[in-house]
Amino acid sequence: MTFVLDEGLAVLERTPATLRAMLGGLPSAWIAATEGGETWSAFDVVGHLVHGEHDDWVVRARLILAQGTERTFAPYDRLAQFRESEGKTLDMLLDEFATSRAANLAVVRGWALTEEQLALEGVHPAFGAVTLRQLLATWVAHDFAHLLQVSRTMARRYRDDVGPWREYLSVMRTETRE
Amino acid sequence: MTFVLDEGLAVLERTPATLRAMLGGLPSAWIAATEGGETWSAFDVVGHLVHGEHDDWVVRARLILAQGTERTFAPYDRLAQFRESEGKTLDMLLDEFATSRAANLAVVRGWALTEEQLALEGVHPAFGAVTLRQLLATWVAHDFAHLLQVSRTMARRYRDDVGPWREYLSVMRTETRE
Repeated sequence: MTFVLDEGLAVLERTPATLRAMLGGLPSAWIAATEGGETWSAFDVVGHLVHGEHDDWVVRARLILAQGTERTFAPYDRLAQFRESEGKTLDMLLDEFATSRAANLAVVRGWALTEEQLALEGVHPAFGAVTLRQLLATWVAHDFAHLLQVSRTMARRYRDDVGPWREYLSVMRTETRE
Repeated sequence: MTFVLDEGLAVLERTPATLRAMLGGLPSAWIAATEGGETWSAFDVVGHLVHGEHDDWVVRARLILAQGTERTFAPYDRLAQFRESEGKTLDMLLDEFATSRAANLAVVRGWALTEEQLALEGVHPAFGAVTLRQLLATWVAHDFAHLLQVSRTMARRYRDDVGPWREYLSVMRTETRE
């Protein structure tokens, strides 16, 4: 196992600025581009990350730490951003993400978690017992997974434009859905 | 075709700040992590991007624009960063990337490229005729491909730490090498 709390928090605190540097002020053709069908745009991803700050990670961490009789997480709504982002601009979502992420990290740092607390368990509605350590590691990996998704989605806008270089760019191979 | 020069340049000018926001000051365990074997760390990727600013994109663009008798690109050294990054810190590479990228974008903007120029051809040593438009689109897609790679590499550090969430995170499936 490689998870170290401070290293994980160092990633979590950078993601809002990373997304702002990457997406802030970009032409809307980039922000709105999807990979087709039901796939998400960069705008959708930022909305999803905002929703996670409100309804997912810290809510579940609190439930674990409380160790009450009810330890099963509420199911997470992966499509909430399609309602909640309506009428908002990307800049509004980036601001909201930065503010709520910072507030959540202040909460987590305030807990001064011990190894014993990191080993406490909650119950995931789909796959059962998970530890607080696994939840926090997943929060970090989930940020990277969505940075990856945004990078892939925007790269693929140029699938045809890159011409013969397509063969050299594995990101353009649509059979992979990493 | 979706490539529009100004939209492409808008991405290229953001990548140095994106990588700085993402990687600057991160614990070295993140910066040095690879996916095993010969795979690249975030440090290696930034070195590769620096090398590209010096030896790849704008060099090849100049060769195309010159339309001289020699239009075949010099082969690109994909491993140059292992020599050139030696003894440097990540911060030094991030600075070098920002400076050389900004200089290159100033050159490209200075060209005030026309549609006719974007259609001019050079010769790639491996796959033959390519247009300036394809070269510039690839420069953009290549940035995204490496942001994707860095995100994937760092996510996979937590492959075991995320526990049962691994099944939900496609980035953790090592059979894909996107």
